[in-house]
Amino acid sequence: MHKFKIQPISTGYKEAIGGVIENKTKPVGALGRLEELALQIAQIQGVESPEQVLELINPHLVVFAADHGITAEGVSPYPAEVTYLMVQNFIGGGAAINVFTRQNNMQLLVVDVGVKGDFAENTPHFLKLKIRKGTENFLHQAAMSTPEMHAAMDAGITVANGAAAKGCNVIGFGEMGIGNTSSAAVLMHLITKLPIELCVGRGTGLDDAGVLKKTAILSQAVANCTLKNTEPLDFLSYFGGLEIAAMVGAMLQAAQNKMLVLVDGFIASSAMLVASEIDSAVLDYAVFCHTSGEKGHARMLEHMHARPLLDLGMRLGEGTGCAVAYPIVQSAVAFYNEMSKMSDLMAPR
Amino acid sequence: MHKFKIQPISTGYKEAIGGVIENKTKPVGALGRLEELALQIAQIQGVESPEQVLELINPHLVVFAADHGITAEGVSPYPAEVTYLMVQNFIGGGAAINVFTRQNNMQLLVVDVGVKGDFAENTPHFLKLKIRKGTENFLHQAAMSTPEMHAAMDAGITVANGAAAKGCNVIGFGEMGIGNTSSAAVLMHLITKLPIELCVGRGTGLDDAGVLKKTAILSQAVANCTLKNTEPLDFLSYFGGLEIAAMVGAMLQAAQNKMLVLVDGFIASSAMLVASEIDSAVLDYAVFCHTSGEKGHARMLEHMHARPLLDLGMRLGEGTGCAVAYPIVQSAVAFYNEMSKMSDLMAPR
Repeated sequence: MHKFKIQPISTGYKEAIGGVIENKTKPVGALGRLEELALQIAQIQGVESPEQVLELINPHLVVFAADHGITAEGVSPYPAEVTYLMVQNFIGGGAAINVFTRQNNMQLLVVDVGVKGDFAENTPHFLKLKIRKGTENFLHQAAMSTPEMHAAMDAGITVANGAAAKGCNVIGFGEMGIGNTSSAAVLMHLITKLPIELCVGRGTGLDDAGVLKKTAILSQAVANCTLKNTEPLDFLSYFGGLEIAAMVGAMLQAAQNKMLVLVDGFIASSAMLVASEIDSAVLDYAVFCHTSGEKGHARMLEHMHARPLLDLGMRLGEGTGCAVAYPIVQSAVAFYNEMSKMSDLMAPR
Repeated sequence: MHKFKIQPISTGYKEAIGGVIENKTKPVGALGRLEELALQIAQIQGVESPEQVLELINPHLVVFAADHGITAEGVSPYPAEVTYLMVQNFIGGGAAINVFTRQNNMQLLVVDVGVKGDFAENTPHFLKLKIRKGTENFLHQAAMSTPEMHAAMDAGITVANGAAAKGCNVIGFGEMGIGNTSSAAVLMHLITKLPIELCVGRGTGLDDAGVLKKTAILSQAVANCTLKNTEPLDFLSYFGGLEIAAMVGAMLQAAQNKMLVLVDGFIASSAMLVASEIDSAVLDYAVFCHTSGEKGHARMLEHMHARPLLDLGMRLGEGTGCAVAYPIVQSAVAFYNEMSKMSDLMAPR
């Protein structure tokens, strides 16, 4: 069993930090969400004096990839093999997340925690921490065993600690896994207690009939489930996926390491939802980067009282929302560190 | 009288460009607004073949600054002198727009078209194209004469052409001028015909009583106005300001030059509103960068059918919304140019 010790962020210096922000050469509050973001980062970094600057060091973007047994039920318009092909695409440098992490100078790391198929080892930016080749079909049985789930969480912990060891203090999480909106939707349904219909969406592009079928299959899966325990981690192991479990471990460990945690869309948010059930202090470290076009996401965010930075109708996964939003995080740090003071501006010349 | 010849963007290649975007390694439409933005940029740049890449060259951010006679009525919580002080701050490099343009590698140019007070000449990034030292108080008389308005538009045209001569094909516009939300609110009221109450907001931070007083003053100014002509440019010269007129000229000329035009918040949008009344094709070149926290902005945007990229509660002006949003424009170009093709990914290996 994992134990995390996440320190809730210090609110002791809120006034001092707020004073720094208010004394910038602008009307009070005029930078809106950027000011809230700067305050959050300053609190995470334990800013104690007005002179102390904020730092974003060695930003990482981690994509966890895994396959899903539930794809046998036709819950996705894409064949399961696309997970493998897309990881090849990440390794080759041609996917959206490659483009956006290059653009914004983030270190990309692709971690195979459960893809069916093998990749060339020692590829830059690729790490094999495979627990098993895909999950079982959770319509009929648990997606993974409890030890497998813990192993997947351990993979996430390893990655968060590996990045921290390189000085990284800001880390974004994304995923690749055909079928994983199904896992995320069921986790959302079971944790938020919202009707399954509000949790299920088009994924990579189902039509209306496809969404109805997916909803029926997921309802049946919940009905079939023989779980006796109903802790969030029980739901996680039963409904998967391996990459979601890895994100849960990684997010909790990153928060324990006092790293800023960038959360991508629907699936990454479902991992944060599970993580926040284990220790709600993880939310102090979270920056929700975008509202996904996937149907259930807005309500899932509401449940966590989260207001993401972007709302651009993106629904690609891979951590692309984190990578596209990252410059806004940089803007928050830049204004905090670099803007001149109102008291200097208004001083007699 | 100015004549602009803005070519509506080519829709002839929409299908070909759309094909490029659809063949990227992602579900169709999964990059949301980034895809629409890439399409717009490709159409502006006249993309004719799938091989042609998009380019963002020498991005500029221009801040037009001027003073406002209406400040004598107490419509702003800040004294009019702050316009001068903030331009000094721009020149000194310590304002928010300095920080964000440095962060995102945009060329900053501050243009004095009507500030009361003089600045050191030959300062880098500063240009003096002063028409007059501030406007008249439009509660009692026209803010400027028609020739002065045309001179201010000319200043904007000069700046847009100067940037184009340096190869620039993407240009953002912002402003500094204590009192200028009053001009923008009246222009919005007269052009959109929305009630003045819906157009007037807190500006740099008025309280409720201040907003009521501002609304009453602006209503009175409209009632006092002796204008016989009711063309948008008549409204512009009567209610100001010089920096808004400069932006109108600059935006129209930039569109004529086939530059991508980044539009900041409430005041810059009021300039685009006037410009679009003169030639609606200017909107084909516009990227609305953010929804301001200023009250009337959302409705003004609706009137132009504009959906901005960001909604972060910012209300600082200076072009800060453009500069913070610029990386998203870069993301649209980057995915279009760099992502691999689905047809390559799915090909037999």
